[in-house]
Amino acid sequence: MCRQAIQRLAAYPSPPSPCLGARRLVAAVRCTEWATGGKVSARRFGSQRQLVMVEPSPTAGVAVLKLKNPPVNSLSLEFLTELNINLEKLENDKTFRGIIITSDCPRIFSAGLDLKELCGKNPAHYTEYYKALQNLWLRLYLSNLVLISAINGSCIAAGCLISLACDYRILADNPKYVIGMNETRLGLVAPFWFKDNLVNTIGHRASERALQLGLLFPPAEALQVGIVDKVVPEDQVQSTALSVMAQWLAVQDHARHLTKNMMRKSTADLLVKQRDADIQNFISFLSRDSIQKSLQMYLAKLTQNKG
Amino acid sequence: MCRQAIQRLAAYPSPPSPCLGARRLVAAVRCTEWATGGKVSARRFGSQRQLVMVEPSPTAGVAVLKLKNPPVNSLSLEFLTELNINLEKLENDKTFRGIIITSDCPRIFSAGLDLKELCGKNPAHYTEYYKALQNLWLRLYLSNLVLISAINGSCIAAGCLISLACDYRILADNPKYVIGMNETRLGLVAPFWFKDNLVNTIGHRASERALQLGLLFPPAEALQVGIVDKVVPEDQVQSTALSVMAQWLAVQDHARHLTKNMMRKSTADLLVKQRDADIQNFISFLSRDSIQKSLQMYLAKLTQNKG
Amino acid sequence: MCRQAIQRLAAYPSPPSPCLGARRLVAAVRCTEWATGGKVSARRFGSQRQLVMVEPSPTAGVAVLKLKNPPVNSLSLEFLTELNINLEKLENDKTFRGIIITSDCPRIFSAGLDLKELCGKNPAHYTEYYKALQNLWLRLYLSNLVLISAINGSCIAAGCLISLACDYRILADNPKYVIGMNETRLGLVAPFWFKDNLVNTIGHRASERALQLGLLFPPAEALQVGIVDKVVPEDQVQSTALSVMAQWLAVQDHARHLTKNMMRKSTADLLVKQRDADIQNFISFLSRDSIQKSLQMYLAKLTQNKG
Repeated sequence: MCRQAIQRLAAYPSPPSPCLGARRLVAAVRCTEWATGGKVSARRFGSQRQLVMVEPSPTAGVAVLKLKNPPVNSLSLEFLTELNINLEKLENDKTFRGIIITSDCPRIFSAGLDLKELCGKNPAHYTEYYKALQNLWLRLYLSNLVLISAINGSCIAAGCLISLACDYRILADNPKYVIGMNETRLGLVAPFWFKDNLVNTIGHRASERALQLGLLFPPAEALQVGIVDKVVPEDQVQSTALSVMAQWLAVQDHARHLTKNMMRKSTADLLVKQRDADIQNFISFLSRDSIQKSLQMYLAKLTQNKG
Repeated sequence: MCRQAIQRLAAYPSPPSPCLGARRLVAAVRCTEWATGGKVSARRFGSQRQLVMVEPSPTAGVAVLKLKNPPVNSLSLEFLTELNINLEKLENDKTFRGIIITSDCPRIFSAGLDLKELCGKNPAHYTEYYKALQNLWLRLYLSNLVLISAINGSCIAAGCLISLACDYRILADNPKYVIGMNETRLGLVAPFWFKDNLVNTIGHRASERALQLGLLFPPAEALQVGIVDKVVPEDQVQSTALSVMAQWLAVQDHARHLTKNMMRKSTADLLVKQRDADIQNFISFLSRDSIQKSLQMYLAKLTQNKG
Repeated sequence: MCRQAIQRLAAYPSPPSPCLGARRLVAAVRCTEWATGGKVSARRFGSQRQLVMVEPSPTAGVAVLKLKNPPVNSLSLEFLTELNINLEKLENDKTFRGIIITSDCPRIFSAGLDLKELCGKNPAHYTEYYKALQNLWLRLYLSNLVLISAINGSCIAAGCLISLACDYRILADNPKYVIGMNETRLGLVAPFWFKDNLVNTIGHRASERALQLGLLFPPAEALQVGIVDKVVPEDQVQSTALSVMAQWLAVQDHARHLTKNMMRKSTADLLVKQRDADIQNFISFLSRDSIQKSLQMYLAKLTQNKG
């Protein structure tokens, strides 16, 4: 059925504490879109593989960007690259003032980094991969466009980062959906700019606890801690995103850009000023035997589960 | 009836979203106090024009400073100058330990900057005006006196800044009163120290949203977001201010001063260390054709509304 | 009955405002443990005077550290020294992953600094004392162990600091117990790193008010402001501490250490980089005649109250 079956394995473990509301998503074989084609008509930009779909919305000047890397929108290098290309195009296209980012995969917004990109590869690959991730965050966090996350599924680790870099987050009120940064659950450490973005969103104390414990918040808790701005019934996520977008677009773009930049530039600069050191730090952490072993065991477990 | 009829036009638009709870205040002709005189007996300091009234309070050592620049306490250069003079006198008068700042104008605490000061003037004027605003904030934010805002009306933009620089904010529970920084609604950008004071008060995330959208909060929302500390019935604003003042005065001044300074000095220093650059930035923004055009259109609209 | 009767006087005044929920703890004569001996069996580490008791817990790898400097666990130099020694031992003992810190004195977790150490001594003594306090905070704040405060009594000033430096705080739901930093109530100023730790926990605005007013929060208010994470019935404090500890220990130590360090190192560094200036500042403040006089009067009052 698929020309290529590539395991897309997500940073999405089942945490020990049931109160976290998280559950395992069994990683599944991913069928590329090459064989099926289709759906190209709706896309304005995007690569041949259609990992990212950009569609018009009912509101003029607003695009809907759909994450489409089944089964769990794990952030492969190819996917990150497509995201960056599409976002850059939208940023430079003067017809657009806002983007609604949502998922085309059922039950998951994004499961975060693709662990296969972090395992058994060489430093040059890790560097390329991590740079693409840095680029994505900087592009989103400082975007002049209004970015709204319509979070229609679980939103994990670097997937959560994507939504945190937006201007507003709407989560579907489904108790099976969780959002948070669970890196420590895999023995990993979130980069400092993940932490900075989280602290700017939910404050220092809540971040300290959430990051150390790798907490994944179900909707009610997510709203309370402030990691999302609104929780609505699942079938109202898109319409709410549009009405919130209208509120943001009521403000003149120029004044809003300058104000957003004033709020965020100093945080983004912390990364910009030490991108290389941050890459080196990432590679040296990732290259440790213990970390590689731990990731490989985790990947093997996921593969077995698919048995 | 008035010797001089000067339009005092306030940064107080009606935002597009009705849920913001804001409404237009039609700017009205201002009658100066020169003709009427009177009420001088209650004043301890103040200029001939009585834009600022300083009255004793029932509590020893506590002055009540009333903003009296009708109709909307817009911050003209003259008003800013009077405020600075009066605050300096109170700061240096050892008989005072605290000030309650409130409005003598019905339904409005202050509508913020006087747009007429920002329109069609020369750079030297803008510099003088902006310096007076910087001085006011630094003086308030680092005051050794206990400053309590008794907010008996809408409190907008730089008017909101005055209250944020105080130690405590009490808002009258009238759904017609709103508080917030709505600069983006006029195509303007709040200076970075407005932002810093807001972030120190309501946190980074809430500030990001409030400043970009130019949100004006009605009482219940204002309390929830933390931009005020207490909401009380309108006729209890002054008595509540006095009882809160008593709580603050129960603490030894010296220890309180040092503690306040420890909390605020680093934020104030961000401005102190770049006052000139901040002025240049303000002037160059204000001098843009697009900004001048936008302000003039807004002023013309206000004048027309008064018909 | 006691070989030595030493007054342990605590920074624990009765604040003027009854709504703070604070009350006076009459300082009592402290009987040393030399005469009685006993209870040594439960201790794994600790000095001859047993000011600190370290006991095993039902959970493997978790120690319970009991503060035992009756009557109010005021932080004498000897007590600080013992605490530092015991914490260092636990930190270096690979069998331990977490510590529950609690009080062995009824109704009080710790009343904070021992004012007798701050009064009528020489600069060398103040330096030694203050260094021990700096060391304690740095050790706690950056500990690789999971630290949980089981706060079974009032938790005041530097006593509050100990709990703030932990990873999680559980307070017994007894309206007589209060927690906070009340330094200004004695005419003192909390060191900047007390402030930094508080701001990281409850945010800037709440800290500004709490520190200036010297607020002591009863349980419900403490939970609301975020100075504690959980309030439970008094007889469930220890069991809750154990179950929360289990949640923290479910995370791999290495990833958790690195994440904790990422969250806290920049705050700790603010002290590390200016330890000497901070000491000089403390000594010069403390050596003022007005401060010494104020402390002596306070101590005399406490002694009189004991009759």
